[in-house]
Amino acid sequence: MSQTNLLVAQSGGPTAAINASLSGVIRRALELDGISHVYGALNGISGLLEGKIIDIGSQIRREEDLSLLASTPAMALGSCRQRLPDPEEDDTPYRSAAAIFDRLGIGCFFYIGGNDSMDTALKLSRYFTNIGSDIRVIGIPKTIDNDLPVTDHTPGYGSAAKFVATALTEIINDCRIYTVPAVTIVEAMGRHAGWLTAAAAVPSHFGFSAPDLVYLPEIPFDIAAFLIDVREKLKQHHTVVVTVSEGIKTKDGAFVCSLRCSSKHDAFGHLQLSGAAEYLEQLVKQEIGCKTRSVELNVLQRCASHAASRCDLDEAARIGSDAVDFALGGATGQAAVFTRVSDEPYLVRTDLCDLAKLANLEKTFPLEWIDEKNHFIREEGIRYILPLIRGSVQPAGNGYLPTFFTFDTSEYV
Amino acid sequence: MSQTNLLVAQSGGPTAAINASLSGVIRRALELDGISHVYGALNGISGLLEGKIIDIGSQIRREEDLSLLASTPAMALGSCRQRLPDPEEDDTPYRSAAAIFDRLGIGCFFYIGGNDSMDTALKLSRYFTNIGSDIRVIGIPKTIDNDLPVTDHTPGYGSAAKFVATALTEIINDCRIYTVPAVTIVEAMGRHAGWLTAAAAVPSHFGFSAPDLVYLPEIPFDIAAFLIDVREKLKQHHTVVVTVSEGIKTKDGAFVCSLRCSSKHDAFGHLQLSGAAEYLEQLVKQEIGCKTRSVELNVLQRCASHAASRCDLDEAARIGSDAVDFALGGATGQAAVFTRVSDEPYLVRTDLCDLAKLANLEKTFPLEWIDEKNHFIREEGIRYILPLIRGSVQPAGNGYLPTFFTFDTSEYV
Repeated sequence: MSQTNLLVAQSGGPTAAINASLSGVIRRALELDGISHVYGALNGISGLLEGKIIDIGSQIRREEDLSLLASTPAMALGSCRQRLPDPEEDDTPYRSAAAIFDRLGIGCFFYIGGNDSMDTALKLSRYFTNIGSDIRVIGIPKTIDNDLPVTDHTPGYGSAAKFVATALTEIINDCRIYTVPAVTIVEAMGRHAGWLTAAAAVPSHFGFSAPDLVYLPEIPFDIAAFLIDVREKLKQHHTVVVTVSEGIKTKDGAFVCSLRCSSKHDAFGHLQLSGAAEYLEQLVKQEIGCKTRSVELNVLQRCASHAASRCDLDEAARIGSDAVDFALGGATGQAAVFTRVSDEPYLVRTDLCDLAKLANLEKTFPLEWIDEKNHFIREEGIRYILPLIRGSVQPAGNGYLPTFFTFDTSEYV
Repeated sequence: MSQTNLLVAQSGGPTAAINASLSGVIRRALELDGISHVYGALNGISGLLEGKIIDIGSQIRREEDLSLLASTPAMALGSCRQRLPDPEEDDTPYRSAAAIFDRLGIGCFFYIGGNDSMDTALKLSRYFTNIGSDIRVIGIPKTIDNDLPVTDHTPGYGSAAKFVATALTEIINDCRIYTVPAVTIVEAMGRHAGWLTAAAAVPSHFGFSAPDLVYLPEIPFDIAAFLIDVREKLKQHHTVVVTVSEGIKTKDGAFVCSLRCSSKHDAFGHLQLSGAAEYLEQLVKQEIGCKTRSVELNVLQRCASHAASRCDLDEAARIGSDAVDFALGGATGQAAVFTRVSDEPYLVRTDLCDLAKLANLEKTFPLEWIDEKNHFIREEGIRYILPLIRGSVQPAGNGYLPTFFTFDTSEYV
């Protein structure tokens, strides 16, 4: 691969760090002599197949462009939720992609996304290998859910976890100003994995007496026991703060939120959840009768760049940069992943891993880090999270509001 | 008033700036030779009447304590929602207060709060005047709602408005990553006044194409027209972002949220609202059928010190400091208020105003600043808001999460 062009795209749900990975890819590509153009496909594989490809390398004119891009949340290239067929069953989209890659002289493709996106990257790489092409496909993980296997953690999780922990710190402080008994139930994202909800326990590490109870989807949720536990906590102090994952389920497997809401499914067949906290709020009001409030942290978990983690953004940029080196070194059908070398000092290494080990798979929160009796997170879990939320980012701004990097998408190559 | 002691308390709902005002009172009091002790009553007038009073001046040992206090959200002294009887009808609580003031040698009392708290300060000052006491009572306004008359704006509003505008900037950016038609409905606080919701329009001033529609409680909400407007916006671009105030009402006076939820009342007889956005989300799903999401910004509006406004915190400290000077200068039965001298350069002056002009009264968002036809905020409204959200605060922290100042409340004086 003497002289080549790179293509990068983003897919899945937003994070505050996904453009930091994009900035890492671009920065490294611009440093290397062997790369002529850095292209970006709009709206992931969907836009790629429609030929919606722009020259992003030429739009980076100054160092400030890269740092502004790195602190811009959500996907600067847009996203999609599209599943590709197996290339062995239907190679139509793959032939379209190959024609585009050929026309644009693309030697390496980087797909930044979650476990669904790793499936797309895996299929693309398999197709190229099957047809004897030397086009390299590398997955760059991202997800606020932190539910990808193999990698110690995913870029995007640290910032989302920092937002959750910061919001909880402020909500706990807010709750204790009144003297009347009150229960606040905070809902964090997490369909099947409790990583993000577990971050709500971090304030306790810094001396806060709350949250009192933290419920992850990894442990069946017992409604009767929940009411007993809340009553018990109310005896100890007048304000009780509970955090629940959107995906908590009863032991029969019913989502707690489904006890109130109609269920909807997204394009991947995943149930769209929300409302567990609101259901529990009504339950506590009815059964205990005290002042109760529910707070759904909602989309800010994935896009609040104003509360991003410095560690997360730096690592996201680094994994993007390392992915370029891996691809140029010959890797394909693999993803860049983090291996934690040590907690203190916190050290991670970027490694390669077969995409098949990530695609469509989920890593849940370790049961041994859950204190099931007290409905809390053990110190091992907190120690895992802490370095990932370390450091703040002074977001770029105009003095009033954050500012974001945007690509000119008017001209396709 | 040769040598005297001061007492300060906080009441009503939290803001990110209410402790900045407290820090201003303490800082100025510690600078002046004529003041021996600065006391703080816990949980507002409720705790005061129970004698829950601590020596807060002696707990400030370093400059860092004051700056940490200033950036700590919610009430460091706790809050209450208690309405006092008219002193002419029942002077029991007033006699209790007078005995405590007498015992502690308190010459000036500062009550930091919203319009309900100004009612308490007014009644206290009237009682002291009626009995011929020279104890001075000064109100220091705070409320995220910005609904106090006379004052150009209230401390606490700027930080809440900055959080709303920042969240909207991030949510707008988050929404545009997909290509499928989608409607996002964001709900901001504001029972009868649309000040906070109006701040959602600020991103448009900085070139964002959204929010598309902004609905304040000042204008009756027409459900049929809303659906027509959303459909029209969806023709223009695929992602539509709408912001509504929690308190929007139909022309019959029914709260939109009450169309779905049971209504609750707080201690002051105010209806507790939430759920307008969720009702509209269901409506849009049903009537238009596109992807729809509702986001309730919830309590972070009042406690997100991590997104506080520099201007707001500085002004809140200043009005606290000025209140001390006003009281020592002989004022009583009055509140410190802001008068805006000019927009550019932004200049405000602290003035005095009779508490009767603030107590229990509400100032709504000016109708002439609302573009009723386009459901948006006119440039005059944006120009009013801009200086109040100027500047960021680097919150004090431990490298991971924000840290807060806490008083030792174990010993009453």
